[in-house]
Amino acid sequence: MSMNAPRGTQDILPGTSEKWQYVERQLADLCRRYNYKEIRTPIFEHTELFQRGVGDSTDIVQKEMYTFEDRGGRSVTLRPEGTASVVRSYVQNKVYGLPNQPTKYFYMGPMFRYERPQQGRQRQFVQFGIEALGSDDPAIDAEVLALALGSYEELGLKSLKLVLNSLGDKESREAHRDALVRHFDPHREELCADCQVRLDQNPLRVLDCKKDREHPAMSTAPSILDYLNDYSEDYFEEVKKYLDEMGIAYEIDPNLVRGLDYYNHTAFEIMSEAEGFGAITTLSGGGRYTGLVQEVGGPETSGIGFAMSIERLLMALEAEGIELPIDEGLDTYVVALGEEAEKAAVRLTYQLRQAGIQVDKDYLGKKMKAQFKAADRIGAKYVLVLGDQELENNVINVKTMATGDQQEVALDEIVDFMKKQLIGGE
Amino acid sequence: MSMNAPRGTQDILPGTSEKWQYVERQLADLCRRYNYKEIRTPIFEHTELFQRGVGDSTDIVQKEMYTFEDRGGRSVTLRPEGTASVVRSYVQNKVYGLPNQPTKYFYMGPMFRYERPQQGRQRQFVQFGIEALGSDDPAIDAEVLALALGSYEELGLKSLKLVLNSLGDKESREAHRDALVRHFDPHREELCADCQVRLDQNPLRVLDCKKDREHPAMSTAPSILDYLNDYSEDYFEEVKKYLDEMGIAYEIDPNLVRGLDYYNHTAFEIMSEAEGFGAITTLSGGGRYTGLVQEVGGPETSGIGFAMSIERLLMALEAEGIELPIDEGLDTYVVALGEEAEKAAVRLTYQLRQAGIQVDKDYLGKKMKAQFKAADRIGAKYVLVLGDQELENNVINVKTMATGDQQEVALDEIVDFMKKQLIGGE
Repeated sequence: MSMNAPRGTQDILPGTSEKWQYVERQLADLCRRYNYKEIRTPIFEHTELFQRGVGDSTDIVQKEMYTFEDRGGRSVTLRPEGTASVVRSYVQNKVYGLPNQPTKYFYMGPMFRYERPQQGRQRQFVQFGIEALGSDDPAIDAEVLALALGSYEELGLKSLKLVLNSLGDKESREAHRDALVRHFDPHREELCADCQVRLDQNPLRVLDCKKDREHPAMSTAPSILDYLNDYSEDYFEEVKKYLDEMGIAYEIDPNLVRGLDYYNHTAFEIMSEAEGFGAITTLSGGGRYTGLVQEVGGPETSGIGFAMSIERLLMALEAEGIELPIDEGLDTYVVALGEEAEKAAVRLTYQLRQAGIQVDKDYLGKKMKAQFKAADRIGAKYVLVLGDQELENNVINVKTMATGDQQEVALDEIVDFMKKQLIGGE
Repeated sequence: MSMNAPRGTQDILPGTSEKWQYVERQLADLCRRYNYKEIRTPIFEHTELFQRGVGDSTDIVQKEMYTFEDRGGRSVTLRPEGTASVVRSYVQNKVYGLPNQPTKYFYMGPMFRYERPQQGRQRQFVQFGIEALGSDDPAIDAEVLALALGSYEELGLKSLKLVLNSLGDKESREAHRDALVRHFDPHREELCADCQVRLDQNPLRVLDCKKDREHPAMSTAPSILDYLNDYSEDYFEEVKKYLDEMGIAYEIDPNLVRGLDYYNHTAFEIMSEAEGFGAITTLSGGGRYTGLVQEVGGPETSGIGFAMSIERLLMALEAEGIELPIDEGLDTYVVALGEEAEKAAVRLTYQLRQAGIQVDKDYLGKKMKAQFKAADRIGAKYVLVLGDQELENNVINVKTMATGDQQEVALDEIVDFMKKQLIGGE
C-alpha cells in the first residue's frame, strides 16, 4: 500500500509554511486596505453549482472535477475554483439585499482539479481571489486591476505585465461573433476538427486554438475591439483612463478572450516576465461577468473578480530571487541540568511563554553541552542557563548568542528582563 | 435543484470571518511562543491511511468518512482528523531523521465527517491541533497540556476544566484489561449486546457505554490507576508534578479512556463549564500515543498531541459572553462629485492604499449626500471630500467623524497627513 500523499498533492512543511503564512498575511492586509472582506465557502458543493456556474462545456467540468456521491447519495464536487461558490453564497444569504453595496469579497483556500501534475500545477492548489458584486462602475474594474497587480508588487515582484482587453457587451460580442464566422467560414476545411465545431458553437474560442495558431487567417481575424458598440467602447476607455490616472501600465491584447458567455467588458491577465519562470507565464486572470448571479437564482447582478494560484506566486518570487523577510530562529532556549533545575526550567519556560516570549527547551534528556549545541543549531538569540549553582543563588545566567555576552539575572526578574530584551519593555 | 451549500457545511461571511481570523492569529501566535510550527497536509488522503491510522473499528472509519474514487480509480478520503496525515507526512518526508527533535507541529484546517448535523457539529468543521513527535519526556506532556489550555485562556475563557488520566503502558493496560474482564464477566448477560462483544474485543470501551452506564458493576469497575506499573506510575506523577509547577489545575478521571490501542500514558480532555454551553461540554481532547508512526511505515516513535474544533471554541466564547477585539469599521472614505473629482478620487484612493491606509469610495454613482450616508453607515473614521471647489484650490476637506471636526489639507500633502492620523507618522 502507498503511505504517500496522493499524486498531485503536497505537504507544506515548516521552513516553507512560514512563506505561505507571510504571503497570506500580506494579501489579507492588501484586501483590508481595499476593503475586501474574507468569505469562506465549503470545500465541496453540489455538483450542479459548477455545471451551471463554471459551465458544462468547459474542460474543468468535463474532465477535471473531483465528483462523488456522499453517503446520502447526493452528487458533490470538490470546488475547482472560487467564483461559483462565492456567487452561490451571495445568493443563498441574500447579500444583494443588504446596504453597503457593492459587496467586496476575498477568499483564500484549496481548490481541486484532476489534471496531469507538473511544475506549478498541482491537483490540490491554493487560490487567492476577489469578487466585487453589484457595481457597473469602470472605476471598480480599475480597482480590481490595481489590487490584482498589487498582490504581486507588494511582495517585491517587478517583472510583471498586465494584459488587458474588452469583450464588450452582448451586442458587441454578437457582432464580433458574426464577423468571425464570416472570416473563418471560407477556411473551414483547413481548420482542425475542434475548430470546425467551435466555429458553429463558440467561434471566439477558435482564436484560442493551439493547433491552428499558425493558420494565415488567424492574424487577419477581426478584432473584438473593432466591434465594440458605443457603450462598450466608452466603458473600456473609462477603465483605461483610471489606470492611467493611477499610473498603472498595461498592454492591450485583443486576442485575450474568455470561452464563457458570462464574461463581458474588462478581461485581463497578469504575466511574469522573469527569466526562467517556465512555460506557463500567466500568474492570474480575471474579468467582468454578468448573468452568473441569475444562473444561481439571484437577481441580475454584474461582478468582476480575479483569481491567482499561490503556488505560482511563490514560483515567481523564486524566479526573481526575492527572499521573504522570515525569521526562522528562536528567541530563547532554556538550558537546565538536574532534577530541580528541570522543574524550574519547566516553570520558567511556561512563564516566559505566558509573557509573550518565544521559548523552547530540551525534551530528550540531553547533557548540558548537547543542549547548548541544540540551542545554537536552532538559532536561539538568548540562552538561559539553570544549573545547581544558579538555582542555589536564585539567579539565571543569560547568554546573548550574537555577542557571547553573559550576565546573571535574579530568577524572579528574568521574565521582565527578557520582555525588555525582546519586546521592548512593555 | 438546490443552490444551497451542502447540508452540514456553512459559509463564513464578513462579520464572522474576522472572528475566525482573530482566533487563528492568536492560536498561531501561541504556537510560535511554544515553538510549534505549521504543517499543511492535503485535504484528502489515500483511504488506507485512515483505516490504519484512525482505526478500522472506529465509528469514524466505519460510518463517517467521505470516501470516493478519484478519476484514476484510487480510493481517497477527505481527512476526518489531523493526526494520521501529520504522521504520514512525518514518515514520508523522513522528518524523524532530521536534527532538532522532537518535531513539534501545529495544523489548522477543515476536516470532514458525515454525521447528523447539530449545534456545534458540522460535517465540515475546522480543527486546530498540535503533535509533538519523538520525545518520551513527561515535561512535553505538560507542555502540550499547557498549550491546549492556553488556546482557550488566551482568548479570555475562564470556565474551563482540565480532566486528566493515565492509560499506562502496554503492560499496565493488559493487567487492567484482564481485571476488567474478570470484573464484568459474571454480569455478561446483563450487559447490552455491544458490551458483550466489547468485553471480548476491547473491554476498556465497556466503561464508555451509554446504555450500561447505570449498571451497578460500572461504579465498582477496576480503575486503570490501580494497575499502573512502576514506570507508568512514575510517568504520571512526573506529568502532574510539572503541571503543579506551572500552577495548572486539573482533575483526575480514571474513566477518561481511549478506544484505540495506540494510546498510552497521558490522556486528557478540556471541558467548558460555562452555563448554557450545551449538551456536549468537551472542547478538546488529546493524549500520548505509540505505534502510529510504525503503522504508517516509520521507526518506533512516540507522540503526543491534541485537537480542538474552532466552531466549539467560538461557541464557548459566546457562552461566556466574550467579545473579541475586532474593528469592523473603515479608516477612510473618499467622497467625490463630478467627473474630474471622480478621477482625482480614484487616484487618491489608490495612493492612500499604497501607503498602507484602508480606504473605500462609492461605486454606485451616488450623490454626495448619499456618499456621506454610506461613509457613516460603514463606520468610516475619516471622510475626505473632493468637490469642484476643493479641486480648483488643490485641497481636500478632511472630516473626522467622531468629532465632526473639518479641516482643509493640500492635495499633495494628504497622504502624509492621513498616515500621521492613522499609522502614527512613519
